[in-house]
Amino acid sequence: MVASEVRALFAVASRPEVVSLAGGMPNVSALPLEELGDLVSRVVTEQGATALQYGSAQGDPALREHICDVMSLEGIDASADDVIVTVGSQQALDLITRVFVDPGDVVVAEAPTYVTALNTFAAFQAEVAHVTMDDEGVIPEALEETLGRLRAEGRRVKFFYTVPTFQNPAGVTLTPERRRRVLEICERFGVLILEDNPYGLLGFDGEPMRALRADAPDRVIYLGSFSKILSPGFRMGWALAPSAVRAKLVLAAESAMLSHSTFNQLVVGQYLSTHPWREQIKTFGAMYRGRCEAMLGALDGLMPEGCSWTKPAGGFFVWLTLPEGLDSKAMLPLAVNERVAYVPGTGFYANEEGRRNMRLSFCYPTPEQIREGVRRLSGVIEREIALRDTFGDVTTRPTDGTDAPSPDVP
Amino acid sequence: MVASEVRALFAVASRPEVVSLAGGMPNVSALPLEELGDLVSRVVTEQGATALQYGSAQGDPALREHICDVMSLEGIDASADDVIVTVGSQQALDLITRVFVDPGDVVVAEAPTYVTALNTFAAFQAEVAHVTMDDEGVIPEALEETLGRLRAEGRRVKFFYTVPTFQNPAGVTLTPERRRRVLEICERFGVLILEDNPYGLLGFDGEPMRALRADAPDRVIYLGSFSKILSPGFRMGWALAPSAVRAKLVLAAESAMLSHSTFNQLVVGQYLSTHPWREQIKTFGAMYRGRCEAMLGALDGLMPEGCSWTKPAGGFFVWLTLPEGLDSKAMLPLAVNERVAYVPGTGFYANEEGRRNMRLSFCYPTPEQIREGVRRLSGVIEREIALRDTFGDVTTRPTDGTDAPSPDVP
Repeated sequence: MVASEVRALFAVASRPEVVSLAGGMPNVSALPLEELGDLVSRVVTEQGATALQYGSAQGDPALREHICDVMSLEGIDASADDVIVTVGSQQALDLITRVFVDPGDVVVAEAPTYVTALNTFAAFQAEVAHVTMDDEGVIPEALEETLGRLRAEGRRVKFFYTVPTFQNPAGVTLTPERRRRVLEICERFGVLILEDNPYGLLGFDGEPMRALRADAPDRVIYLGSFSKILSPGFRMGWALAPSAVRAKLVLAAESAMLSHSTFNQLVVGQYLSTHPWREQIKTFGAMYRGRCEAMLGALDGLMPEGCSWTKPAGGFFVWLTLPEGLDSKAMLPLAVNERVAYVPGTGFYANEEGRRNMRLSFCYPTPEQIREGVRRLSGVIEREIALRDTFGDVTTRPTDGTDAPSPDVP
Repeated sequence: MVASEVRALFAVASRPEVVSLAGGMPNVSALPLEELGDLVSRVVTEQGATALQYGSAQGDPALREHICDVMSLEGIDASADDVIVTVGSQQALDLITRVFVDPGDVVVAEAPTYVTALNTFAAFQAEVAHVTMDDEGVIPEALEETLGRLRAEGRRVKFFYTVPTFQNPAGVTLTPERRRRVLEICERFGVLILEDNPYGLLGFDGEPMRALRADAPDRVIYLGSFSKILSPGFRMGWALAPSAVRAKLVLAAESAMLSHSTFNQLVVGQYLSTHPWREQIKTFGAMYRGRCEAMLGALDGLMPEGCSWTKPAGGFFVWLTLPEGLDSKAMLPLAVNERVAYVPGTGFYANEEGRRNMRLSFCYPTPEQIREGVRRLSGVIEREIALRDTFGDVTTRPTDGTDAPSPDVP
């Protein structure tokens, strides 16, 4: 394991004068703190004997029932018996990798994909095979070609890891037609799907996308999280898995932590019982829509020719592609010097790709900050283009390699 | 991994008519719930923007400073930089095993030792070499002999795992003289020590024992926990490690969960800032002393000849040895039928030992329940002795193999 490039960024990007378009922190200021304060207090005073005690490794049964209600919004019909509560969906990802992956196994993943998933796969010595995406998500033909090639090479594919909805980092969403094809291809190749869906309920318009898991309960392990629809501060996520897998995950969870915090589980359960959580999710969605519009509007108005970017319908992220000959990682120190930060694209690939890409997040800064950040960024890119036109390709410059602590890059 | 024997017990032992001397649940009824309720509420309303957000993988700096204060009670002089906050000390144990152990490596551990540590070592395919204990803790000569033999065999020993104070399950404490010898032996063999110390502050009399870590900062990784001195419901533990190890653990923690709950960390930090926590620990200690006295008194008065047991000076557990020819695992269904439960000794060994032993816990039931439980247990043992005298050795009988959920066996 090596310190991720993304972490290195936060020492500088956390300075107040920098507009950070880098982090993936949800905006918890939309939460009703007084009500939440009362709620957590009542959990202690009224349910203290349970809340302050050990719980089961699988998680609180009442919370697992609530989790099934949350997933039903995406068309999933599940039993609470097949849910395991985890320390964020990150722990679920870790436990699943631990249970499934032996060194040298292959994990297939979108290109680009979630940076900390790559770290986890690397920690268990999996090799990642990337599959190309476009604006409609992963390309089925590319997935089929990759699985066919790996089979021909005799490689052991453990699962296809995908963030199908409002993807991190690309911001794109797999279309319903492609969902059917991805399921059919994975079924044909006998490959398990790991559907990571932290943003699925944070669409800007209309009904939530139907989850892959909804149509393939035996083929898909689904990962969910309360980090974006409530708060990351409780570290409350889950996995929904076929029962044989779920049993293995419960044993792995017991070894990993005995059990998750009973207190936090009862807090989230109480929140879902007593609070209009569906309305709260809509409030979040509306806020993020406004910020996304601010970002897309600023990009449209300010970015120099030759840049392109995705147009998310939900989630937290826009994926920007620079003109040829530019390098987002080499450019980062200049950008930070101009008081704007982003995540260079290379961190989201297990190979050498991504140098012309960057992830821009619109979740945390205000619309005004976003516009100002994009303005600064476009100035930096303009100067890089001018440099390229004068001196040729911009290649390696030293990047900031400080080992900073904050991994707020989910 | 297999479902542990201990877990199997809880489906039956949780019935209200059964006196459970099995679980290791702390008695949280001694906590001031109203005050704690106010405290958690204030953390949300006054520090919500931080408490409900992601944190760093290493843990909240202020909490890590408090943790250094807690450890100073055991003679440890540490920097908060070398502390990592974990989901109970169980997660620290898991991360350390993950970082250090390759399949086939050897972990040296006391005989008997903490059951879930054995599960974790097994999950990472470590082989456990047990070292004999007596009433003064692990026997230095036996440790030296084991390390010498393993070296002669060319085996790779990754660490010596020890619960030196009020051991789980044996209830014994390593004497100061032996601590010096254990440190000297491990230094000589170049073996790291993993000091697991969840009960160290819960002594019945006098000052806390000086931790092994206090005298060997580079040789010892120390694991601590708030589960027994505050509440297991927050899942708050830590590791103190030499800085090179700590850096690896932080990366492993990031892969395992991104970060621990910021909310819980601020709650525990606030508790330590504003509450007389040293007094609370004394309250806990006095309560457990009363329960231990109830157990030892009942054992003295009621147990048939041929039984022996340890006399703890703190912690949660008494380790009982049955007369020859008896089998604690085979006897368990009979005991549960007589409405008393315990943990059979076999779960605390990686080999076939422990059939004549059982762990009796005095932490959770009231003194009256403890006396009644011991009364029932002594009746069961008496009948087993009579059976043995009539029919010879009591050997295998079917044991209860239900896969029950609750792992409250720390």
